[in-house]
Amino acid sequence: MTEPILDQINSPKDLKKLTDQQLFALCQEVRKFLVSSVSRTGGHLASNLGVVELTVMLHRLFDSPHDHIVFDVGHQSYTHKLLTGRKDAFSKLRKTDGLSGFPRPAESVHDAFIAGHASNSVSAALGIAQAARLKGDDSYTIAVIGDGALTGGEAYEALNNAGRSNTRLIVILNHNDMSISKNVGAFAKYLSSLRSSRRYLRMKRHVESVLLHTPLIGKPIHRWLRRSKSIVRRVVYPSTFFEDMGFHYLGPIDGHSLSDLSSALSRAKELAAPVVVQIETIKGKGYLSAEENPGEYHAVSPSASTGENYSEVAGRFLCELADQNDKICAITAAMKYGTGLQHFAAVHRERFFDVGIAEEHAVTFAGGLAANGMIPVFCVYSSFLQRGYDQVIHDLAIDNRHVVLCVDRAGLVGEDGETHQGVFDAAYLSQIPNMTLYSPEGYEELRLCLKQAVETETGLVAVRYPRGGENRAHTLSPDCNFQFVKDGTDTLLISYGRSFSECVKAKAQAQSDASLLKLTKIAPIDHQAVKTAMAFRRIVFVEEGIYTGSIAQQFSSMLLEQGYHGTMEILAIRGEFVAHGAVKDLLASLNLDADGIVKALKQEETPNE
Amino acid sequence: MTEPILDQINSPKDLKKLTDQQLFALCQEVRKFLVSSVSRTGGHLASNLGVVELTVMLHRLFDSPHDHIVFDVGHQSYTHKLLTGRKDAFSKLRKTDGLSGFPRPAESVHDAFIAGHASNSVSAALGIAQAARLKGDDSYTIAVIGDGALTGGEAYEALNNAGRSNTRLIVILNHNDMSISKNVGAFAKYLSSLRSSRRYLRMKRHVESVLLHTPLIGKPIHRWLRRSKSIVRRVVYPSTFFEDMGFHYLGPIDGHSLSDLSSALSRAKELAAPVVVQIETIKGKGYLSAEENPGEYHAVSPSASTGENYSEVAGRFLCELADQNDKICAITAAMKYGTGLQHFAAVHRERFFDVGIAEEHAVTFAGGLAANGMIPVFCVYSSFLQRGYDQVIHDLAIDNRHVVLCVDRAGLVGEDGETHQGVFDAAYLSQIPNMTLYSPEGYEELRLCLKQAVETETGLVAVRYPRGGENRAHTLSPDCNFQFVKDGTDTLLISYGRSFSECVKAKAQAQSDASLLKLTKIAPIDHQAVKTAMAFRRIVFVEEGIYTGSIAQQFSSMLLEQGYHGTMEILAIRGEFVAHGAVKDLLASLNLDADGIVKALKQEETPNE
Repeated sequence: MTEPILDQINSPKDLKKLTDQQLFALCQEVRKFLVSSVSRTGGHLASNLGVVELTVMLHRLFDSPHDHIVFDVGHQSYTHKLLTGRKDAFSKLRKTDGLSGFPRPAESVHDAFIAGHASNSVSAALGIAQAARLKGDDSYTIAVIGDGALTGGEAYEALNNAGRSNTRLIVILNHNDMSISKNVGAFAKYLSSLRSSRRYLRMKRHVESVLLHTPLIGKPIHRWLRRSKSIVRRVVYPSTFFEDMGFHYLGPIDGHSLSDLSSALSRAKELAAPVVVQIETIKGKGYLSAEENPGEYHAVSPSASTGENYSEVAGRFLCELADQNDKICAITAAMKYGTGLQHFAAVHRERFFDVGIAEEHAVTFAGGLAANGMIPVFCVYSSFLQRGYDQVIHDLAIDNRHVVLCVDRAGLVGEDGETHQGVFDAAYLSQIPNMTLYSPEGYEELRLCLKQAVETETGLVAVRYPRGGENRAHTLSPDCNFQFVKDGTDTLLISYGRSFSECVKAKAQAQSDASLLKLTKIAPIDHQAVKTAMAFRRIVFVEEGIYTGSIAQQFSSMLLEQGYHGTMEILAIRGEFVAHGAVKDLLASLNLDADGIVKALKQEETPNE
Repeated sequence: MTEPILDQINSPKDLKKLTDQQLFALCQEVRKFLVSSVSRTGGHLASNLGVVELTVMLHRLFDSPHDHIVFDVGHQSYTHKLLTGRKDAFSKLRKTDGLSGFPRPAESVHDAFIAGHASNSVSAALGIAQAARLKGDDSYTIAVIGDGALTGGEAYEALNNAGRSNTRLIVILNHNDMSISKNVGAFAKYLSSLRSSRRYLRMKRHVESVLLHTPLIGKPIHRWLRRSKSIVRRVVYPSTFFEDMGFHYLGPIDGHSLSDLSSALSRAKELAAPVVVQIETIKGKGYLSAEENPGEYHAVSPSASTGENYSEVAGRFLCELADQNDKICAITAAMKYGTGLQHFAAVHRERFFDVGIAEEHAVTFAGGLAANGMIPVFCVYSSFLQRGYDQVIHDLAIDNRHVVLCVDRAGLVGEDGETHQGVFDAAYLSQIPNMTLYSPEGYEELRLCLKQAVETETGLVAVRYPRGGENRAHTLSPDCNFQFVKDGTDTLLISYGRSFSECVKAKAQAQSDASLLKLTKIAPIDHQAVKTAMAFRRIVFVEEGIYTGSIAQQFSSMLLEQGYHGTMEILAIRGEFVAHGAVKDLLASLNLDADGIVKALKQEETPNE
């Protein structure tokens, strides 16, 4: 497949010389390339198809990396990657050692800031823009944020600070009325109301433009109108939320029209002040099936394998529990499908809450439900729950509210890379007083732990489980606490969750007589489990999580406090962020798969001197 | 001192029978009581004086605990405590085993939800209100939130979800134009603009009320006007932000007028739907010095001891460093005075950023500044930085940005209680890859570490220090890494920060020959420090922080992995939240003061069997 124009674009500079017609053709080529390439490799399709024209026009009119383009979430940055010299790398998109699916400053100077977790772009861009101001350079900083990411509080905090800053900040609000799930909340409705009042706003822009080009008195009147707090201003010149926040506001414009984009972005440049440009786009634009069902095409798997997985099992089981108990409520932060809650949402509509990308609110909201007698279950990805860390401590743990956190995507997630790996939750949740933390292995144990969490526990509890499907290698029956599988008396292998399956495989592979200890409740650590381990000369603890503060470190510290005098070895993720790649590859490179454990078992460690 | 009416109020029920005149008199009595009592005990004065009338009227018109009153931050809940049977406890306000300075569900059924960290009230109240709806009860839930707390993103996330909920939620927006520091950001200006357009809004309310009372056609027209997205509506019926978010909006009204409060709150009750009531109050109302300088009277110390302290020293030194290096920027989240940044703000105005109560934004914003060549220093209280945990990982650590986190109030803070104790930061920050974490002891070492952090380090670094002043007991010269003080060869005492001073005292007190190891860099833990400790038969690690995931546990795990066969004992905070009280008392009760360490030193521990 050849893309005659795209093939000539090696850097944004190459865009400047194209004619309007060539730009138009380039957009078609980019779209064709994305559909064909992403269908092969997997990746985010719909969101990228929505911003082809925008991205082309940004690189045409601005000068990256002198000007900084900050993508929010960043799964819409493929066109940006194509135009900044990374076309050849698309065959290894999201693969081990390949191109990241998100902007990654380590990958290119054109990736101005990290992205992955929603709603950080305006904050980052404002920082970059303030630095430019302090250095006295004339660069622009552009944040590209979707309406979905605008439901996150951090975006609002940033807007509150940015509007009246003396910077060259341009916020492109990409309104496609469709984040991963249908966007929720009042603000989304508000944005749609702005779209439907487009004609009115066009008139207003006209008034503005006339004023700005009227000699002498035009500008002062315009300034007075914008700044005045008077009744007059509010009546004759109703402002948008963004103008109330101190921004100039342009739009809404058609985000698929190169000419509309060109004039709006040029105007934004002229203003050289904080400005919001609202563009209207269609997610999946140009690819029929994606356009019709952007939710489904949000992320495409190359081998569309949609078998059973932990999320599905959790979602269905919670729905069953809720059939029996009308106190159970379910909460998601814009991840209804990702967390398997679509069943619950359909059957128990009144008790289902999609709060938008708003993990802080979700946690406290759960606390409020619990304070008034409900049993809320918040299903959330491990790395996104980091956003609610303070709320878990403050609003749930202090009063030990009976809230169940279903921590999905716990452990390595693979292709989404360092921003999404769920490697911190075991450490940060186990620290918190009153927290009971389960890490089941396999579906049956997951159901057992969920039942325990919802029906038996009376305080704060979390159940964590990995992305994907179960992969058990043994016939141990499920248990919520810990299980000891006695064999030899010299070596003990300890683990939990998915890693325990690897331990079982490793034991078989190495023909080792190591005994096994499986922790399902990982916080608080059971003193009997520690006591059981005391009898062994040698302990190897395997953990698919960050080493510092890990359950393994906590366990070994308890051993030492109990007077343990044997040797201890910890296999965990030591002091590094884990990049994207297949989970299998990542586990292998970290020595956390069966082969790695076999190596550890066979090689008696010698203390480094 | 007698308060004839107040003395008769033992529960909110007693308010229902008072005449208007008596209510007015009650407010005067409450105010008098607060001024006299808080002057003696210390506590928050200005914020409480601002909401006397509001609180009296809430308890008059609503029925707590059937109706739920959720205070945001909660340092304005003294009148609420007075009216709910806790008057006699005020002599021990914020004292060990005394009355908490914040709402505390464990203290009273009238305290509907925990408070302490700003901006959680609307989320919690919405949860409570949704639970009421699901249970089919007719209770109201009232969130009382100041304009300061509205700068926090979580409040916005909650408003986005609450406005269109089918609940009896009333949000009282207490606009006093003055949070702890002067409120910042565009939204604060917006609220003021609403105040100044009061006359217009009064007219609008009049139109509304006429419509609502016009038979047949009034209500449909009103509904159409409220819901219409048409140009007509936006022009003839401009809405506030809150109405755009789906709320009814009442106000602004005079929050010190009992009659205005009565009619607005009664109206809010009638609506039985989500409503925002904006009230205008004067912080410190009725107490002249507080009214004139609410910032200074935000919190009153009984013994106004304003000597040198860690915050002051850090703030002044950062200012000096910035004199020499124009890349250094300082950021605060509405705690300019609390973190000692007032000097920096005065001298380096352009490089000083008060972002409001917005820790998430602050962290990412710092990342943006660093990405464009600045050296940002974010000064923030330990327990508030919990809000930015995800951003520290995602926006700073992954790309190892050279950002300096000055973690103030690290360790126990005392009177503010469990919500404010800085006992998690050592654990949660040390987990994060690329993080270098210093915990200096004393001012000289603080300065050394700050200099190291700003001038020598090139990546992410945090410097943590306690509330209050230094309390060193030795003459060790300052060092950024670790220091070994050799004495006997049997026992080693390890600690860091303020606790190390206690260790030195304990050693003297017990006339122990224990050697001492002081860690100033607590993450990553220095392998040489671990090696040094290996030589001892017995190790006692003292840490003023949460036990699980602590530096002590990490250190002992490293010892065990190195083949350590001695005994280890950890003194830390084990699995509990620490309530309010004098730091001295708290340390004593946790065995973390010199006496506690002496006990540990003298009693050779026997492993529990």
